[in-house]
Amino acid sequence: MDIEKKDFLYEGKAKRIYQTNQDDILWLEFKDDLTAFNAEKKGSFQKKGATNLKISQLIFDQLEKEGVSTHRIKQVSENEVIIKKVKIIPLEVVIRNKAAGSICKRLGFKSGFAFKEPMFEVFYKKDELADPLVTRENIEALQICSMQDLEKLKSLALKVNQTLIKIFKQAQIDLIDFKIEFGLDKEGQILLADEISPDSCRLWDIKTGEIMDKDRFRKDMGKVDEYYNEILQRLEKI
Amino acid sequence: MDIEKKDFLYEGKAKRIYQTNQDDILWLEFKDDLTAFNAEKKGSFQKKGATNLKISQLIFDQLEKEGVSTHRIKQVSENEVIIKKVKIIPLEVVIRNKAAGSICKRLGFKSGFAFKEPMFEVFYKKDELADPLVTRENIEALQICSMQDLEKLKSLALKVNQTLIKIFKQAQIDLIDFKIEFGLDKEGQILLADEISPDSCRLWDIKTGEIMDKDRFRKDMGKVDEYYNEILQRLEKI
Repeated sequence: MDIEKKDFLYEGKAKRIYQTNQDDILWLEFKDDLTAFNAEKKGSFQKKGATNLKISQLIFDQLEKEGVSTHRIKQVSENEVIIKKVKIIPLEVVIRNKAAGSICKRLGFKSGFAFKEPMFEVFYKKDELADPLVTRENIEALQICSMQDLEKLKSLALKVNQTLIKIFKQAQIDLIDFKIEFGLDKEGQILLADEISPDSCRLWDIKTGEIMDKDRFRKDMGKVDEYYNEILQRLEKI
Repeated sequence: MDIEKKDFLYEGKAKRIYQTNQDDILWLEFKDDLTAFNAEKKGSFQKKGATNLKISQLIFDQLEKEGVSTHRIKQVSENEVIIKKVKIIPLEVVIRNKAAGSICKRLGFKSGFAFKEPMFEVFYKKDELADPLVTRENIEALQICSMQDLEKLKSLALKVNQTLIKIFKQAQIDLIDFKIEFGLDKEGQILLADEISPDSCRLWDIKTGEIMDKDRFRKDMGKVDEYYNEILQRLEKI
């Protein structure tokens, strides 16, 4: 049966989600919008959605080869993809290889400080609380997920980190940190969901140290589109 | 050898610390000061230091009976005590039985919400960072203490909670949450340090639900001294 785009379901900060003619399949549209600081700052550039989807697809291809299960089914246009419907676990799972952004202010690390071990953190996806950091005990009290699933998220995130480091290094890019999300399918299997793109990673040029990711937008550094395209071009070459 | 008060070492928000004529013994003076919001708000009342020390002594007596090792040696005046010199672990260890204060704003719990299990949280004692919440992984990266010691702090804090709940219940007081600190002695043994008082606990009257602790000061509710004295009187009766 051909998959058809049906009712609009939900609009996120950088994506629109539609139902399809199949119950357990969703239609994901990558928007050209950029947001930061819990959507207080807004922007966009042409083909941003298509660029991010291309980058995300290249990365997900590699992750699937390495045995990480994802929500993907297939790409249907330059900025649209169909995915398995999952129950999103409302956690932003973050791995930090070097300190940058909020952790510097929060814990006093110098920007660029290299952690001995990749640091795992989780934030509760809740706009009205501005996505607070949560501990294991907080997650238990909030009944967000089981501690067994949380441990699985941690080991999956560390595995994703290993693959991402490898990919980006080949593209002469230093992976500082990234955020991923997971969902549970009907069988309760954990699938990598959402996207992996310069919106959700901090990426610095290995040689020059230049910021190539969404921090260019957050910090009004300009040339956001040029750097996103540069990342895509480098990944396409490897 | 008699213990004598010697050089002034350090002034905290509610205490002054002096060296004694013995290397490994310190002299602790409880001040009449009250502070809140990282010392942005200041106040005091007469005999506050003495009241807090009396309350803390009654509680520490009970905890020691239950096998919790503390830094105490003996009381030397109504607001002074001599203690073993310990290396303070720079963590505020918090146990929450019910939600109140910062956790309500942070995670959206209603004030008074009873947690299924007492919730353990740790905050990094660092004034310039305003004592941020830290996860296990943060503690590792900051090299604050070993994960083994952290697990010990958690089980000690939960043990302290059991004893405190019992004591306060007999005094018709509901223990909402509390903050404690620990230190390491020369042998690396973990000792309960600092104090346990209405400055460091949230205490609500079991029958009326009235706030009896430092929140009266934080929220400008008045009668701070009366309620602190009420807590002491109730504890002295049990």
